[in-house]
Amino acid sequence: MPPFSTGRLSARLERTRKAVSSLGLGGLVVSHVPNVFYLSNLSASSAFLVVTASRLYLLTDFRYSAAVESLLASPSSPPDTTFVRVEGSYEEALAALLRSIAPGEPMGFEAASMTVRQHRWLTSRLDTASGPAVALVPTDGVVERLRAVKDDDELAVMREAGTRLSEVAADVLRDVVRKGRSEREMAADVDTRLRAAGFERNAFDTIVATGPTSALPHAHPGARRAEDGDLVLVDFGGVFEGYCVDLTRTTVIGQPSPEVRRMYRAVADAQDAAMAAVREGVGADVVDGAAREALARYGLAETFGHSTGHGLGLEVHEEPRVGRRRADGAEPWCLAAGMVVTIEPGAYVTGLGGVRLEDDVIVTGTGASSITDVPRDPRLLDG
Amino acid sequence: MPPFSTGRLSARLERTRKAVSSLGLGGLVVSHVPNVFYLSNLSASSAFLVVTASRLYLLTDFRYSAAVESLLASPSSPPDTTFVRVEGSYEEALAALLRSIAPGEPMGFEAASMTVRQHRWLTSRLDTASGPAVALVPTDGVVERLRAVKDDDELAVMREAGTRLSEVAADVLRDVVRKGRSEREMAADVDTRLRAAGFERNAFDTIVATGPTSALPHAHPGARRAEDGDLVLVDFGGVFEGYCVDLTRTTVIGQPSPEVRRMYRAVADAQDAAMAAVREGVGADVVDGAAREALARYGLAETFGHSTGHGLGLEVHEEPRVGRRRADGAEPWCLAAGMVVTIEPGAYVTGLGGVRLEDDVIVTGTGASSITDVPRDPRLLDG
Repeated sequence: MPPFSTGRLSARLERTRKAVSSLGLGGLVVSHVPNVFYLSNLSASSAFLVVTASRLYLLTDFRYSAAVESLLASPSSPPDTTFVRVEGSYEEALAALLRSIAPGEPMGFEAASMTVRQHRWLTSRLDTASGPAVALVPTDGVVERLRAVKDDDELAVMREAGTRLSEVAADVLRDVVRKGRSEREMAADVDTRLRAAGFERNAFDTIVATGPTSALPHAHPGARRAEDGDLVLVDFGGVFEGYCVDLTRTTVIGQPSPEVRRMYRAVADAQDAAMAAVREGVGADVVDGAAREALARYGLAETFGHSTGHGLGLEVHEEPRVGRRRADGAEPWCLAAGMVVTIEPGAYVTGLGGVRLEDDVIVTGTGASSITDVPRDPRLLDG
Repeated sequence: MPPFSTGRLSARLERTRKAVSSLGLGGLVVSHVPNVFYLSNLSASSAFLVVTASRLYLLTDFRYSAAVESLLASPSSPPDTTFVRVEGSYEEALAALLRSIAPGEPMGFEAASMTVRQHRWLTSRLDTASGPAVALVPTDGVVERLRAVKDDDELAVMREAGTRLSEVAADVLRDVVRKGRSEREMAADVDTRLRAAGFERNAFDTIVATGPTSALPHAHPGARRAEDGDLVLVDFGGVFEGYCVDLTRTTVIGQPSPEVRRMYRAVADAQDAAMAAVREGVGADVVDGAAREALARYGLAETFGHSTGHGLGLEVHEEPRVGRRRADGAEPWCLAAGMVVTIEPGAYVTGLGGVRLEDDVIVTGTGASSITDVPRDPRLLDG
C-alpha cells in the first residue's frame, strides 16, 4: 500500500481535529482499522490512535513495532506523532495514556467499532473514587464523514483500480462464463484473474449466480452448472493499494427469452437514470429514486429490494449510502464532489432469474465520472 | 457449507440453554456471525438469534429470506424455530421481539460482538417510563466456550481440510518457492492452489516472507525476490465447508548457514516439545511453556514474541489461546478432548531471519492427533 505523504495526513488530521472540537471534545480515540490507516498510514489489525489538538498517539503491539518505527522515520510519517508500544492489554495501555494526556477531559470514541466488552474494560480502568478520570463520549462517523470525500491521491488510486477491474470483467465475460461450468469454478477463475491484475485481495467473496440462483441478490457460488438460457450474474471486487472497487455484470448463456431481455433493458435504463441523476448537491435518495422510477415504468419496481448503491473506498461498503430515505427520518446524504459510489440497480424475479448492473462513479460538479467501463451485453439489449 | 443435522443443532442449543440458565438469564441474544451459524446453520453476514428456554428466534432481512425459508423446510432446520423477517432496522426488530417474548426478564447479549452503537440503539428502544422493558446483560464467550470443543461432524470436516492443506503446502514448497520470485507472486500462487484444492477462501491473507522480512512475524508479501541463502516463511490457511485450517512452513533458498540450521532445529524441537505436552486435562499455558523451554535451551527464548498457538474452527483465531498465563490473573484454558489448536512456535532474529513451524492438532485423551502433515526441510534439519 503506497503511504500518503505527511502533508496529506496533516490535512486529514486537521479536518478531524476541527470536527472533534466542534463536538466539544478534547480528542478522539480512533479504533476502526480503516480510519487508523487513513489518518496515520499504519496498516495494522490491532491499533488505537488518539488524536488530540496538538498530537497524534499511535498505540500498537510488538507485531507492528518495526513497521511503526520505519513509518515514523519515513517521508510518509504522520506529523507530531508519539508511538506507544502496547505490552499487555490494549485497554490498559489506552486507559493509562488517556489518564496522563487528558485528565478530566471529554474524549470521543468510535461507538460503531468499539465493542461493549472493550468499552466496559476501558471504563473500569478509568474509574476513580471520584468518578471517571476521563469521560468517554460516544461519537458516530466522525472520520467516516471525512473519508466519504476522496482526495486526489485516493481518486488516482481508485481510477487505476477501476480500469484494472474493468479489464478483468471483460476477460471474465469473454473467457470464464461458459455453458457447463459450475458457479464455484467460475468464481475461482474470477479470483485468480483479480490477483493476476494486481489486486491485493478480493474486496468481498465473489458472486457467480446462474439461472434460478441469480434471483437471489446475495447467492454463494455453488455446484450448479450454467445451462442454456441461464442468466449469469457475476459480482466481484478487488482491493488495490488499499482501495476497493466493485463491479457487476449479468450475461446470458445462449439466446435470452423476450422476458429476460425486457428485464435487462429495464435494469440498464434504471442504471442510466441513476447515473444521470448523480451530481454534486443532489440527495442520494434522489439518485435511488431515479432508478426505482425507471424500473416502475416496466412494472419491476417491486423486484428491486436493495439500495441503488453505496460509497466505496478503504471499505467496500462505506458512506454515502445511495438508498431510500430511512424510516427513522435521518437526513439522506447530499452528494459532494469527490465522493465515489456504486450505481447498481437490479431486478430479481423468481423463476426468471436476476439482473444487476453495477459501476463505480466519482461525483463531480457536473455529473458522474465512471471509473469502470465494460460494455453491456448486446444480445440482452437488442429487441 | 454442508449444514449440520437438526439433531446436532438440538444438542448445541441444549448446551447453550444450560449455560444461559446457569448465568441466571432468561435467554441469549446471539449476534456473532460464527455463533449464529453454529447454532442455526444460517450463514448470513447480518442476523440475530434469540435463544430462549423453549424456542429459537432467527432475525434476518430480505437478502436471506429465501435461504432461511429453504433451511427451515430442510432436514437441517434448527429445531423449534421462528423466523422474524427484519423490515427496517435490526435493533428495532430485536427490541420489538424482546418486548413481546421476554418482558421483564434479564436477557444476555454478546459483549464482544455488539458494538456500543448497537447497544445504545437497542437500549433506547427498550426504555419505558418505568425503566427498561427487558434488562440486557453483557455475557462473554458463552457460545465460544461450547465451540472450543468440536463435535464429530466438525472434526471430520477439519481432518479433511487439514489433509487438503497439507497437500497444498507440499506443492507450494516443491513448485512455488523459488529463487528470483517475488513474495507477492508466490503468495498469489499459494492462493490459486488453495482454491484449486477446494477451499472456499483464504482463512487470512497469505504470508510469504523472504530473507530479512521473515524476521517480522506478520509481514505482508512485498516486491522482494527470494535470494540465495534466504529463509522463506510461508503461512497460509483455507476455509473448507466453513472451517479454518492454518499451516506454516519455513524453507531456505540454496544452502543454509550453520546459524540458520541451528535456529530451525530449535524451532523444530520447540514444536515437538509443545506437541508432546498436548493432552486432555493439561493447561494451555503448560503447552506454551514447553515450547519456550525448548527455545531457551538454544538461548532463543527472547526471539519468540507470540503465543504458541490458538484454537481453530469456524474462526481462524478462536478459543483456546495457547499462550502464557495472562498478566490479569485469568485462569488459562484447560485442554479438553476435541479441541483443535495450532502449535506454531517461532524464532525471529533481525539480520538472520525468522523460522516458524505450524501444524494443527486435535486434543485427545492421550495426546495430540495432528490433522496436518508436511515433512520438515531436511536441508535445515541436518548438521
